[in-house]
Amino acid sequence: MADLPDTMRALTLLNDGYSGTSEGPQLDDLARWVTLEDVSVPKPEGRQVLVKIGLANVNPSDIHYIKGEYGQPRRKGMPAGFEGMGTVVSAGEDAEAQGLVGQRVAVSTSQGGSGTWAQYALTDKAAVVPLAKGLKDEDGAALIVNPMTAYAMVDLVQKAGAKSFVMTAASSQLGKLMASLGREKGLHSVATVRREAHRSPLEGLGAGTVLNTERDDFSTMLDQAMKQHAPTILLDAVGDTSSATIFRAMPAGGRWILYGKMSPEVPKLPDLGQLVFQMKTIEGFWLAEWMRDASMEDKKAGFETVQKRFISGAWATDVSDTLPLDEAPAKLASAMEGANKGKVLLKP
Amino acid sequence: MADLPDTMRALTLLNDGYSGTSEGPQLDDLARWVTLEDVSVPKPEGRQVLVKIGLANVNPSDIHYIKGEYGQPRRKGMPAGFEGMGTVVSAGEDAEAQGLVGQRVAVSTSQGGSGTWAQYALTDKAAVVPLAKGLKDEDGAALIVNPMTAYAMVDLVQKAGAKSFVMTAASSQLGKLMASLGREKGLHSVATVRREAHRSPLEGLGAGTVLNTERDDFSTMLDQAMKQHAPTILLDAVGDTSSATIFRAMPAGGRWILYGKMSPEVPKLPDLGQLVFQMKTIEGFWLAEWMRDASMEDKKAGFETVQKRFISGAWATDVSDTLPLDEAPAKLASAMEGANKGKVLLKP
Repeated sequence: MADLPDTMRALTLLNDGYSGTSEGPQLDDLARWVTLEDVSVPKPEGRQVLVKIGLANVNPSDIHYIKGEYGQPRRKGMPAGFEGMGTVVSAGEDAEAQGLVGQRVAVSTSQGGSGTWAQYALTDKAAVVPLAKGLKDEDGAALIVNPMTAYAMVDLVQKAGAKSFVMTAASSQLGKLMASLGREKGLHSVATVRREAHRSPLEGLGAGTVLNTERDDFSTMLDQAMKQHAPTILLDAVGDTSSATIFRAMPAGGRWILYGKMSPEVPKLPDLGQLVFQMKTIEGFWLAEWMRDASMEDKKAGFETVQKRFISGAWATDVSDTLPLDEAPAKLASAMEGANKGKVLLKP
Repeated sequence: MADLPDTMRALTLLNDGYSGTSEGPQLDDLARWVTLEDVSVPKPEGRQVLVKIGLANVNPSDIHYIKGEYGQPRRKGMPAGFEGMGTVVSAGEDAEAQGLVGQRVAVSTSQGGSGTWAQYALTDKAAVVPLAKGLKDEDGAALIVNPMTAYAMVDLVQKAGAKSFVMTAASSQLGKLMASLGREKGLHSVATVRREAHRSPLEGLGAGTVLNTERDDFSTMLDQAMKQHAPTILLDAVGDTSSATIFRAMPAGGRWILYGKMSPEVPKLPDLGQLVFQMKTIEGFWLAEWMRDASMEDKKAGFETVQKRFISGAWATDVSDTLPLDEAPAKLASAMEGANKGKVLLKP
């Protein structure tokens, strides 16, 4: 794997730090936030590996990040992109890192590394996952952020001893994965959507009860679902007033767990008496924390579970477009348009 | 202890259930919510004891309750009052309950029992605490709700391994108790008040840093205190926008623990990204839950701790008035007027 070039093409960040805004994960124009340029190919040290990127993913968290609205500060001039797949082409002196050289892997970024929207990405050995034979490249490019978040959150529901859970924005890729994982584990999911057309696909995937937040009978149907299934965990990607309404309707002990913030609306804190007298809590979930804190066994089980499902065809990464890296600044925003379209991948 | 009367005087609730309002713990006119009448003296069964009330307490939670704004539904015709002191005059067949007959006790109400704003109150044996010799009756009447909440919350801070905490409305009786308990345990308290006059008494009691939320430099002083002491627990009696401001300023891992709701204002949910990326949580504390879930040793240690402090004179129940039960409907509201006045007790 010798003969690496000195420079590479990359989409690098135009800004530093946080923007202070909260526009949400909608993209108007990629060129506002990143630029295509030639930068040095980074050199792995210690536990690090260098991955030649085959396909890079574009997640809502990437858009949040390049806009300066994510949980980590931007670093001007660094390649963006949290996730992708490729081949490990070099490694630091760490023996395990060295052992990964030559392997096809899913890659997520790590502190001190560089982004995947580039020809090469630098990351920690713990942030790559060797891919099983038979797993498609596009599934590998989207293996970590969504599937592992789905796995970890459904695992959280199960470990909490719950028999059911609520999820919002359930027609997202992540929601679909949770619907099917929930069914496999015998958990009843109460899934909210905003369009009637999303109902039957979700039911087909395993969602237990699908509720349309835009229908006039939403709150009646919600109360009925709460009575029947008494879910104590809300997995929420939205964070708006309808999330607060669901939280209020949940039984005592209810946990509102935010893992995303799709709505720019800032809801009022719901009935504070419920926090005191019904022991309800509001908290967050971040995969990066889970990856740091979960046991090796839990992580291994997770990666095996998700790869198996992609290989069997039970899950599939729904790709609507693959753009060459250098066309992304001009074309990414329009390629991503339309609610609930498939993923757009980048090919360096 | 024989020869109990068939009927007793009591202040009984005029309404059932919840009101749906959230006016807060201000009292305009007690007669809107309770009436003085003769009712049957209840008969203890099983684990229950009957206490002849010597003094009953009036807490903010009592006012919330009679208004239908507390965590339990009202029961029309039942005596109100969550706390008091007196003598156990009869008991159910349970041997431990029988063993309490004749003892001077602090009493709090329990499910299936009756209130303390009456000549007699019925409660579970676990909801009475035998009083040490030397403890004044008025300290006994206010031993549980405030002192035990203060004890349990400071204990929570200590068990969480924190070295400091923030408390709002710190000039309340509860805040004063937490300031001194915090100092004894080596915890630095950051205490918010709304008047400059409350600063030095609180500092004298042991508050580490006193911040005035009404001063122009509040947010500067707050940021400074956060940097210096990095408290990860906020014990909040207010639940308004200034509570949310404190929560936002707290370091990663910060827990906003509501134990009261003095402000009728409903704040907006603070920066949801902090819940996700900084693992912050919003939760509640309710003494009734703590009393149910804490170990016998923790409870025993708590009751010993608080009684010892009252007997030594380190703590004192600040009583501004004692009203006969039959004068309460006309006089209680005016007796309670004025911010941070002492307690008003009722004498049946």
